[in-house]
Amino acid sequence: MTETIIIIGGVAAGAKAAAKARRQDPTANISIFTEENYISYSACGLPYYIEDVIKDSKKLLIRSPETFRDKENIEINLNHRVIRINPNNKTIVIQNLINNSINEVEYTKLLIATGAKPYIPKIEGTQLKNVFTLRSVTDGMAIKEHLNEMKKAVIVGGGLIGLEMVEAFSNVGLEVTLIEKREHILSVMDKEIATQVEEYLIKEKGIKIQNNTMLTAINGENTKVKSISTNKNETIEADIVLLSIGVTPEIELAKAAGIEIGKSGAIKVDYKMETSMKDIFAAGDCAEQMHIITGKPVWYPLGSTANKQGRVAAINMTGGHEGFRGVLGSLVTKVFDYTISKTGLSEKEALDNGYEVLTAITSYRDRAGYMPGAEKITIKVIADKNTKRLLGCQAIGKGDADKRVNVVAAAITAGMTVDQFMAIDLTYAPPYSPSIDPILITVKMLTDED
Amino acid sequence: MTETIIIIGGVAAGAKAAAKARRQDPTANISIFTEENYISYSACGLPYYIEDVIKDSKKLLIRSPETFRDKENIEINLNHRVIRINPNNKTIVIQNLINNSINEVEYTKLLIATGAKPYIPKIEGTQLKNVFTLRSVTDGMAIKEHLNEMKKAVIVGGGLIGLEMVEAFSNVGLEVTLIEKREHILSVMDKEIATQVEEYLIKEKGIKIQNNTMLTAINGENTKVKSISTNKNETIEADIVLLSIGVTPEIELAKAAGIEIGKSGAIKVDYKMETSMKDIFAAGDCAEQMHIITGKPVWYPLGSTANKQGRVAAINMTGGHEGFRGVLGSLVTKVFDYTISKTGLSEKEALDNGYEVLTAITSYRDRAGYMPGAEKITIKVIADKNTKRLLGCQAIGKGDADKRVNVVAAAITAGMTVDQFMAIDLTYAPPYSPSIDPILITVKMLTDED
Repeated sequence: MTETIIIIGGVAAGAKAAAKARRQDPTANISIFTEENYISYSACGLPYYIEDVIKDSKKLLIRSPETFRDKENIEINLNHRVIRINPNNKTIVIQNLINNSINEVEYTKLLIATGAKPYIPKIEGTQLKNVFTLRSVTDGMAIKEHLNEMKKAVIVGGGLIGLEMVEAFSNVGLEVTLIEKREHILSVMDKEIATQVEEYLIKEKGIKIQNNTMLTAINGENTKVKSISTNKNETIEADIVLLSIGVTPEIELAKAAGIEIGKSGAIKVDYKMETSMKDIFAAGDCAEQMHIITGKPVWYPLGSTANKQGRVAAINMTGGHEGFRGVLGSLVTKVFDYTISKTGLSEKEALDNGYEVLTAITSYRDRAGYMPGAEKITIKVIADKNTKRLLGCQAIGKGDADKRVNVVAAAITAGMTVDQFMAIDLTYAPPYSPSIDPILITVKMLTDED
Repeated sequence: MTETIIIIGGVAAGAKAAAKARRQDPTANISIFTEENYISYSACGLPYYIEDVIKDSKKLLIRSPETFRDKENIEINLNHRVIRINPNNKTIVIQNLINNSINEVEYTKLLIATGAKPYIPKIEGTQLKNVFTLRSVTDGMAIKEHLNEMKKAVIVGGGLIGLEMVEAFSNVGLEVTLIEKREHILSVMDKEIATQVEEYLIKEKGIKIQNNTMLTAINGENTKVKSISTNKNETIEADIVLLSIGVTPEIELAKAAGIEIGKSGAIKVDYKMETSMKDIFAAGDCAEQMHIITGKPVWYPLGSTANKQGRVAAINMTGGHEGFRGVLGSLVTKVFDYTISKTGLSEKEALDNGYEVLTAITSYRDRAGYMPGAEKITIKVIADKNTKRLLGCQAIGKGDADKRVNVVAAAITAGMTVDQFMAIDLTYAPPYSPSIDPILITVKMLTDED
């Protein structure tokens, strides 16, 4: 039987799945339906496009619709909204957003790769001009279009995208205020780590950061944003406002079709990326993952995960066998010349998951101190007090932080204890590390030995 | 009993051991004896001092003799040669190189950290002026002293130090010819990897490289070097010649004392760094190591290993318990803007050790292709065909190569198979990697799956 593979969504997981499915099955009918006007782009690159580090938005496009159609024989339907999945007769109902026509098409295998949508607070003024979220190429182009007319930016939410946009707005010359409702920015990191990032941004980069501050209203003048109001009865002027408060998985279609939603709030999938409905798969930011350490369902909407899940789904949809083995929530981001990186659990997350923990924190140069360009990195490691297994690592600083975090990611995946970790023979040369790597010194502090 | 700890040699292992021993045991008598006029310096930093990336040789000094004496109460004896170890009555015999006086002192614990010495070929002309080896600060200062009067350099031996000195000589304006007796430079790497480095050096950096070429004589004029002769009956002009043909462990003292020498040619030690003679330890470039993969004794004289071994020896000499867990031969070096990095076995080494192997080689950008500064790296991975365990990784290029190698170092230490490796959740953001890291793509090629 010739498979008819339909993919809803065409950014990371969807586009990856389409290309992989084609390589796996040269004869399948493969189509992508997307509401957007673009497919197969790097959403993670958008802040760099806005910052003008990347001049042309076309550079973010990984595969063009023409490449998909002409070289890979994949049907691309832009501006098409899927409005219903009918699992019983294996069809989807589609609305053409250009002419509003409705159509029903059959599938043999369906992939839901609908992604996530930015959370918009229920307050006044979110519809005003120059109030943005950042998710799609269209968002990126809209933000960039009038950026040179702007002077003051307010970013709401100090997560990864918020921080990347702090850099972007600041580097194009805007005065940036970041407001964060929690006690510190970067809620995925422990407080002492996040606080260092805050200090760097405030002292070295002139960013205004207000923690424990909630957006209460966005105020406009003639349809354009003019300022924001906070729960501290403060008004902050703004020519542009970015809402980066978080995202929620796009699960409405799945939910309406009776597909099970997981505890994380995203679509529940097995290791093959199949949902609770046979022949319906989900991948990317709409799907949940299993956490490698806790074994619990989690939802970390990250580009690397989306790509891997799309690949796994495609293999299984085309008769192959492949499993997605879960996540550690590994992440890295760059904010000016600071690297912010993490794998596994923070101390807080470990405690929340019931672990008794050992922690150590150090601050060392990333390479031999006498080398020009040597920069400090702060590393925090967390281990299970009972088993001595590594649970997590956070590393930040102007130096090479993510290199150390990735070594810990491998160690956690292998289930290494802190003592086993000490046997790792890491590379050394003065331009790359001190003679004993800072990650070894930090993990050493968790061992019983001297 | 108050321990009297004597350490022969004061560079990496020796200096590290002294400092660690003091922290472990506040009351021990601790002395270092060294032939050199310097202690506790970074020999690995010498090429960067010669290149003038580091202006002042003092920057290479980690702890001064004064710090050792005044702050750590460690006796430092510069310009003292140990001429004999008497294990039976636990003494060493020392010659003061300034006044030639001979003295015998007692120890309760002895550490041999005599390092390694450059191999000098038995040919004519090695004693000529401007013919150097590079091992000590004294060597480095001698090389740097007249460098601005030089025009043409010949480097003999394309190992790590040879290549670092290619950069140093070239960057200070010398015309550099590198001669290598083997088929390719970098004998620790597989041929296709080493060949890429050669191409880079020749095409982009104007270095002359002659493989399969042996030095047969060094020719002088008025005591100064003038040229070298090769086995190809060629004469190459040279104002300066660096012999970086390799090093041999300094084992004479140990051998004469009846201490067992290992199969690798270096001093045999157990995991505590104790030699075959009770209370006599060895650490650093004079001592051998156990290879984590093969379990065989090997001798990789590297600075990171020396530091770790010195630390382990110190703990055990002061009544503590600590084991040195072996090496993977992990290495990294920078040659201009090329990173050359390796962990574990090369394909050739794996075959020589009797493994049937799987290998894969790829060339991908180190970060998202649209990011400015994205550079290609070539990665080669080697796995055991039977067990599917990872055996080694080599990565080179202008991009971030060593990050990937260190992840593999962790995986090899944990005994991960290629399939287990694929579960590692590595960090991703466009400035740091493509959405699926090149090391994952490369290792994936060794799995059975699609």
